[in-house]
Amino acid sequence: MSEKKLGVQSIKFQNPPLILSTSSVVGKKEGEGPLGKNFDLVLDDDLYGESTFEKAEAKMYKEAVYRAIKGANLKPEGIDYMFGGDLLDQIISSSFAARELKIPFLGLYGACSTMSESLLLSAVIIDGGYADNVVAVTSSHFCSAERQFRFPLELGAQRPPTAQWTVTGSGAAVVAKHGKGPCITHATIGRVLDFGITDANNMGAAMAPAAADTILRHLKDTGHMPCDYDLIITGDLGKIGRDLAKDIITSEGYDVEKQFTDCGIEIFDLESQDVHAGGSGCGCSAVVLGGYIYKEMMKGSMKRVLLASTGALLSPTSSMQGESIPGICHALTIERMM
Amino acid sequence: MSEKKLGVQSIKFQNPPLILSTSSVVGKKEGEGPLGKNFDLVLDDDLYGESTFEKAEAKMYKEAVYRAIKGANLKPEGIDYMFGGDLLDQIISSSFAARELKIPFLGLYGACSTMSESLLLSAVIIDGGYADNVVAVTSSHFCSAERQFRFPLELGAQRPPTAQWTVTGSGAAVVAKHGKGPCITHATIGRVLDFGITDANNMGAAMAPAAADTILRHLKDTGHMPCDYDLIITGDLGKIGRDLAKDIITSEGYDVEKQFTDCGIEIFDLESQDVHAGGSGCGCSAVVLGGYIYKEMMKGSMKRVLLASTGALLSPTSSMQGESIPGICHALTIERMM
Repeated sequence: MSEKKLGVQSIKFQNPPLILSTSSVVGKKEGEGPLGKNFDLVLDDDLYGESTFEKAEAKMYKEAVYRAIKGANLKPEGIDYMFGGDLLDQIISSSFAARELKIPFLGLYGACSTMSESLLLSAVIIDGGYADNVVAVTSSHFCSAERQFRFPLELGAQRPPTAQWTVTGSGAAVVAKHGKGPCITHATIGRVLDFGITDANNMGAAMAPAAADTILRHLKDTGHMPCDYDLIITGDLGKIGRDLAKDIITSEGYDVEKQFTDCGIEIFDLESQDVHAGGSGCGCSAVVLGGYIYKEMMKGSMKRVLLASTGALLSPTSSMQGESIPGICHALTIERMM
Repeated sequence: MSEKKLGVQSIKFQNPPLILSTSSVVGKKEGEGPLGKNFDLVLDDDLYGESTFEKAEAKMYKEAVYRAIKGANLKPEGIDYMFGGDLLDQIISSSFAARELKIPFLGLYGACSTMSESLLLSAVIIDGGYADNVVAVTSSHFCSAERQFRFPLELGAQRPPTAQWTVTGSGAAVVAKHGKGPCITHATIGRVLDFGITDANNMGAAMAPAAADTILRHLKDTGHMPCDYDLIITGDLGKIGRDLAKDIITSEGYDVEKQFTDCGIEIFDLESQDVHAGGSGCGCSAVVLGGYIYKEMMKGSMKRVLLASTGALLSPTSSMQGESIPGICHALTIERMM
């Protein structure tokens, strides 16, 4: 087995890459949620001065990257590569932002798991010795996602209680070889699992098996126990998916009662903000990492976090063709070693 | 600068990963082209026994992966990770194939540049010490791509002479730490460039500046000269894009007259097969690599090849919103060191 491989699907970084800085740009509703005060920029209007929601999303993406780079005291020329993705067809938010940023770009698609994928590949390229500074970034936008995946907003379609609310937001992180910040110490690359859920309004249930599979694999491969973590946080399972994933993890003998939650649950007040099962989207775990987890780690109130962004790999076409929804999850241990 | 970084955008692999095996599964029309006899499997019917073109594409993808793994004398359990992507919204061919293959999966989107992206990230994860055997794979399908990006085939829309023909095909490669085969020695990660082309039926022109930029960068960073290569081959510029890219490269003082061509030109007989400017699609460079370049390198008739898959980063939504088409290109030097 290769020297940095642990168990079946996991990686141990020899010189754990640092997260030098993060950023979080969010929409109005996210700014009104429980984490609102933590975000770097809250938009007044989700169109962000653009003529379409897609253009607004690309602008948020660019802004998040600029802010993360500035926060690391770097300039775009100082960034070797950018890993990123989003939910739009052909990841156009990413491509259009990359066109203006001019940073060599590697496009990813892992649905809402993309922030973990992006961070883990950033860590691989840095620990491997191929780069010094890399940006990892994702975005999502409620309005562009709804019309692409479900219905145009103008239709006023009713949402069932299992539905989630796509987060309007973009979060970026500068991952680096040198400097100060929490480190990415271990990563697990997920498998695609599908338990036959066909309801695009119940993505939490579709993703829960993959989330549990990757988290269990991460714990087994690294030998960590849940009590070693201050937080084990999935990307966007929402209330329903979180409960399902927790049941699977608990049934395998791991007690995660104290530290298991979900970015989609933390970002909104589920009672008062009318988001049904919780937040979702590529941007969800990115802004919760940037706006909340990273800041808590820098303050020292969290020492070790397991971030497990979760993706539902459906497309409108696959759903129309009767396909069920495969899920995926990639996980990272982030640790304050300062 | 990091120890394996060359110049601004390039990487030098310390222990160049090997391409242990490749595979190529193509449609009927591709089987009738000049490279037809080289492909591992030519379909009789592009539906491949499935009820939709999208399902047929996912089946080709899976078949290509199985064949590459078998060709390397491995089993799916012996593959650490799979890097892959395709052109469909939310890369569903990849996700649905990954669901059945059960190999830990990292999804990519670089439009038709994805095969280079996939191969270079496979080389990074192996040379970095994180894996022993990885699969890189992409696919495209004429019928699923036409209806997604342009018009349903049933409409019988007329195609202008600048249009290209999406290759129906899937190609995979097993990249490994140990064994025998040509090596990936250097890679260049591309920037997104956009010279303002808005015509989705002229993608060659949209991609040509990015192709030239990456190839020039690869030559400058590595210090290689065009005469060091038996072949410098882009992904799917077609006739128009190839001529434009060649002009830019030549104007910078590099003579590529003898070895510069394009996978989209090689795969079809442009005169007799009614494909206008040439082939295109994610699968194009993948099957030309698997079915032709790799076999020539194994025979010894080619020693060093520069593979530069090229991607047009448009979506139907971005085109409808009046956006121009950004291009990207990633490049690899593949060398026979046996």
